[in-house]
Amino acid sequence: MDFPEALSCPLPILSHDTVQLAHGAGGKLSNEMIDKIFLPRFLNNTLEKMEDQAILDNPGGRIAFSTDTFVVDPIFFPGGDIGDLAINGTVNDIAMSGAEPKYLSVGFILEEGLPFDTLHRIVLSMEKAAKLAGIQIVAGDTKVVNRGSCDKLFINTSGFGFVPDNVHISASNLIAGDKIILSGTLADHGMAVMTTREGLSFQSTVESDTAGLNHLVKDMLNVSPEIHAMRDPTRGGLATSLNEFAGSSNVGIQLYGDTIPVKENVRGACEILGIDPLYVANEGKLVAIVPEDIADDMLAAMKNNTHGKDAVIIGEVTDKHPGVVALKTGLGANRIVDMPVGEQLPRIC
Amino acid sequence: MDFPEALSCPLPILSHDTVQLAHGAGGKLSNEMIDKIFLPRFLNNTLEKMEDQAILDNPGGRIAFSTDTFVVDPIFFPGGDIGDLAINGTVNDIAMSGAEPKYLSVGFILEEGLPFDTLHRIVLSMEKAAKLAGIQIVAGDTKVVNRGSCDKLFINTSGFGFVPDNVHISASNLIAGDKIILSGTLADHGMAVMTTREGLSFQSTVESDTAGLNHLVKDMLNVSPEIHAMRDPTRGGLATSLNEFAGSSNVGIQLYGDTIPVKENVRGACEILGIDPLYVANEGKLVAIVPEDIADDMLAAMKNNTHGKDAVIIGEVTDKHPGVVALKTGLGANRIVDMPVGEQLPRIC
Repeated sequence: MDFPEALSCPLPILSHDTVQLAHGAGGKLSNEMIDKIFLPRFLNNTLEKMEDQAILDNPGGRIAFSTDTFVVDPIFFPGGDIGDLAINGTVNDIAMSGAEPKYLSVGFILEEGLPFDTLHRIVLSMEKAAKLAGIQIVAGDTKVVNRGSCDKLFINTSGFGFVPDNVHISASNLIAGDKIILSGTLADHGMAVMTTREGLSFQSTVESDTAGLNHLVKDMLNVSPEIHAMRDPTRGGLATSLNEFAGSSNVGIQLYGDTIPVKENVRGACEILGIDPLYVANEGKLVAIVPEDIADDMLAAMKNNTHGKDAVIIGEVTDKHPGVVALKTGLGANRIVDMPVGEQLPRIC
Repeated sequence: MDFPEALSCPLPILSHDTVQLAHGAGGKLSNEMIDKIFLPRFLNNTLEKMEDQAILDNPGGRIAFSTDTFVVDPIFFPGGDIGDLAINGTVNDIAMSGAEPKYLSVGFILEEGLPFDTLHRIVLSMEKAAKLAGIQIVAGDTKVVNRGSCDKLFINTSGFGFVPDNVHISASNLIAGDKIILSGTLADHGMAVMTTREGLSFQSTVESDTAGLNHLVKDMLNVSPEIHAMRDPTRGGLATSLNEFAGSSNVGIQLYGDTIPVKENVRGACEILGIDPLYVANEGKLVAIVPEDIADDMLAAMKNNTHGKDAVIIGEVTDKHPGVVALKTGLGANRIVDMPVGEQLPRIC
């Protein structure tokens, strides 16, 4: 996927081919790994100081702070890998508040024996995702655990940004009449991971939608700061996000079933595996709840952004059935879309 | 250790005794775990909103941001556990900049099958450490991986605080004549973990020194904001911190060997295992580099704080041997204290 970058940036020469316990010990080997693998890719004025904390300028305004840990299996999948997923995931959690994501920390847990070639590919992918989002990686930590004590590598990203004064997005802001806009197709990420894991193949590969959505959010806020609620429906899928909105605001949500976009091959994968796309993780989609009078302008602005080109109004907020999400099916019935009980897809992100 | 808290706070009634994959899926079981295990212990106005990001007031001033991941094995050890270690570790990394630690995120990776009783004990210990430090846990994430894909649990904490305008602490600030103050005995944490792991026992138990040092730092800044450099010598021990200071400031460091305090039982454990206490992780100690003219007042203030009562001046900064840390031994020789190459003690924090 990233062949041009990979070719222009070969694996640096290191004293070992694979990660050793000593690479996590804070000594000379740790420094070699940091200096050759991490710093050249993530470098900025703050990180290069190599203090135990990043000291950052503060433009003022409320701070949006978020954390997420990534344990996806497999670590490479069509459309992305654990690296860009880890950057985009926290970028998106910050962006959903309307904040501009500014600063990120990265915490690695590496399994002894992990090939440096693998780590380097993932770090290149993180570099690319961070640059696309315009976020700086300013703090990091690496631990190495014995072989068998973790599965290849896990990544935590935490970060923050600053919320514009006129933006007040919250799950508890929904009011009857609001429109529900989805930025694109559902279930791409979860089904990309799942079909890779199960070895299923389709005429066209099911690809993850992993992407940073902060530029899309900026375009939306340029239309109006009056976005009531917004979320990126990751674990638990759209169904979970909407149920949380309905519960927090004590309103009902009515979905127009036939409007929810799902790619043909994704739909096929869902059918084979018996999975409802409403419950599958997305990693490059958002759902926004906006007042009816700005819904069309918001939709138009979203469609002008790459990450919103398939945006569509999929439903509305109602004062009927408070706390309940309902979906009109093709046959005219109105089925309840409940919270999932548990895991359809373990280790999806 | 925490019997009073443990008795007053029994494990809540849950639908399972152990962690299931479904507890990491963002559905109803995830919510049960969050509502019964995490929220009651970590609750504050921000966390209870349960948004995907915390929205935080911003008092202004430079931001000190840090991240750390904890993989210590065993997860319980004399003097502490992975929970208070994870809180104190990031509190201390923030505090070493002179900032008051304010906000923390917690990211858990849980192994399927982990007893909830274990998780609950750890969460109680995190609650206690966070309250002692006066820091709020405002964001969290939990992932569950299949049995065998991680070792019980790993915890990432990331957090930040605000640096007072008149404080400018940095590894590159050292000048010849500065005094080096150590806040107490060396190697307690590393040797507590190591002796537990190796099943060694001594007449008195070797206990970890895990503690939040932010109140000690506050007392020190009340004496003078002119602290040149400060660090909590964790992985790699005091030797690594001092080598980083010497390198960043291009000065020499001369230690007075016989002044460095090590508890009797810790020294015994180090001798049996062939480990130099200068290289062992501490989790409740700091080393501060201060101008000579304020060193005595600083030392006195430190001795008045529980976490600095054994503080001692252990050396000075010199313009001889730039970049090199040297230690005068009892026999009058001056040996070089180099950076460690790698791992003496894997999975110590």
